[in-house]
Amino acid sequence: MRRRYAVLPNMAFLEQLERVAGAVEAHLDHLLAGPGLSPQSERLTDAMRYAALGGGKRLRPFLLIESARLFDVDEAEALPAACALECIHCYSLVHDDLPSMDDDAVRRGRPTLHIAFDEATAILAGDALLTLAFEVLSSESAHPDPTIRAELVLLLAKAAGWQGMAQGQALDLSEARKHFGPDEIAAMQTLKTGALFRFACEAGAVLGRATSQDRAALFAYASAFGQAFQLADDLLDAEGDAASVGKAVAKDADQGKATLVASLGAGPARARLDQLLADAEAALTPFGGRAVTLRDIVRFAAHRKR
Amino acid sequence: MRRRYAVLPNMAFLEQLERVAGAVEAHLDHLLAGPGLSPQSERLTDAMRYAALGGGKRLRPFLLIESARLFDVDEAEALPAACALECIHCYSLVHDDLPSMDDDAVRRGRPTLHIAFDEATAILAGDALLTLAFEVLSSESAHPDPTIRAELVLLLAKAAGWQGMAQGQALDLSEARKHFGPDEIAAMQTLKTGALFRFACEAGAVLGRATSQDRAALFAYASAFGQAFQLADDLLDAEGDAASVGKAVAKDADQGKATLVASLGAGPARARLDQLLADAEAALTPFGGRAVTLRDIVRFAAHRKR
Repeated sequence: MRRRYAVLPNMAFLEQLERVAGAVEAHLDHLLAGPGLSPQSERLTDAMRYAALGGGKRLRPFLLIESARLFDVDEAEALPAACALECIHCYSLVHDDLPSMDDDAVRRGRPTLHIAFDEATAILAGDALLTLAFEVLSSESAHPDPTIRAELVLLLAKAAGWQGMAQGQALDLSEARKHFGPDEIAAMQTLKTGALFRFACEAGAVLGRATSQDRAALFAYASAFGQAFQLADDLLDAEGDAASVGKAVAKDADQGKATLVASLGAGPARARLDQLLADAEAALTPFGGRAVTLRDIVRFAAHRKR
Repeated sequence: MRRRYAVLPNMAFLEQLERVAGAVEAHLDHLLAGPGLSPQSERLTDAMRYAALGGGKRLRPFLLIESARLFDVDEAEALPAACALECIHCYSLVHDDLPSMDDDAVRRGRPTLHIAFDEATAILAGDALLTLAFEVLSSESAHPDPTIRAELVLLLAKAAGWQGMAQGQALDLSEARKHFGPDEIAAMQTLKTGALFRFACEAGAVLGRATSQDRAALFAYASAFGQAFQLADDLLDAEGDAASVGKAVAKDADQGKATLVASLGAGPARARLDQLLADAEAALTPFGGRAVTLRDIVRFAAHRKR
């Protein structure tokens, strides 16, 4: 079973990933280059740029753009929604890194925002990036049809909010967290990291006015992908070293919080990862050869080293 | 000049204010009574409820509802947008009270959220209330027309975001703040507190499909009202005591941050307040007798004791 995925993603895929990341970076740079209100106002903007620019694989925007592409939506048309999603992801990293949350000092090989600036600025920059996501999604440039814009806003707010990502982070910080078994850990991750991956694929379907069947297939793909991504992350965390991963590793274990890998054991965790990868691929069947890039992302996520 | 406003608002107004606050409270209670995901997930919900329920004059929702009423929009139709706005206001109070921001321990006579719960939960509850605002605004219950929903989302995101309220808070926390003169203080307050008041009135106009002239008149009213509200707040801060105001007073002065009152002097500040109240009333001229409640809010805001 494992052998199927022991092939590295092909070069064309990696070039495509890098090219889209460049387009996302350029658009975020454009969004955050608004007219300065006053010289004093630059600190918040600088902090937002520090958090949003210059790093990351941009996997979530890539997933959104490639999902939309299945329905012949141009990359340029999907780019604003993809960047709105990335704003949410970047805000969540900034707030999760805060001293009262995960207390991380390094992210993507650089000091975290509250270290590079200060804690108040980090909280505000996170708030502002979260808010910017909805400004971008509701602007006409996100889509000419207001029905589509309103639906994207609703889906993203649900994915990121109190019954989605924010709840996942709350569960991860809860007292009960230390005693979570494998099912509870998986349920928490479905909210904490899964919700944004599901939004990425659903947003692609919404932009492409996909049928409900196609949308459901993408949702199933995204669910399996999100779990696989998190499991690969946990394996990296358990087996990697900080220098190559670019952030602190084995932090969960140090805090007495079992990961799914620790909870299941490394062998069963790897078997589960293989099953999730197979599930993700199977969900793409209706799209045939058009879904080649979405298949490649799965392999990439499972084999990444950071 | 001052004598004109030395009359207290009439009883009918106060009853109306209280009644609408009750409707806002009930709707927020309904919004935050969603199905629990698991027993562990209740802490975040409880924190959001602590922040959003059980207090406040609900002035911003009232302003939105009364602005919409000018254009024959039913209170029930304006209530979701009014509650979305209140979610943003409540999130901003929670984050502003944090130790790394204003470090306030008391709000509305109760312990602030990070004292009653913990700092991480306060940050997350703020994030989740901010996100909930956009979930509410983009839901069909906010308005049947998606064009209206998308416009409300865009206006609120701009009002609350990096070129609105969040920027105002960043300026208030900046190093330069201690040397702000009256104009810079007023510009900061236009962002920090003015932006949400302007949204309240603009949202009423959008819900009522107001003409651009009527919308501009309401915008002018809201701008004057916002400044008057803040000035009255600063006068309370300078002259009130903590027990009757319900939060710490004279904090700005203690931190070496001049308020507009300190910067102008109490006499000129009171004269400016009277001028702003007159400006707000004048802006309502096009609406004639229909704007009686909006006139009463102005007097209420100038004469309130907390």
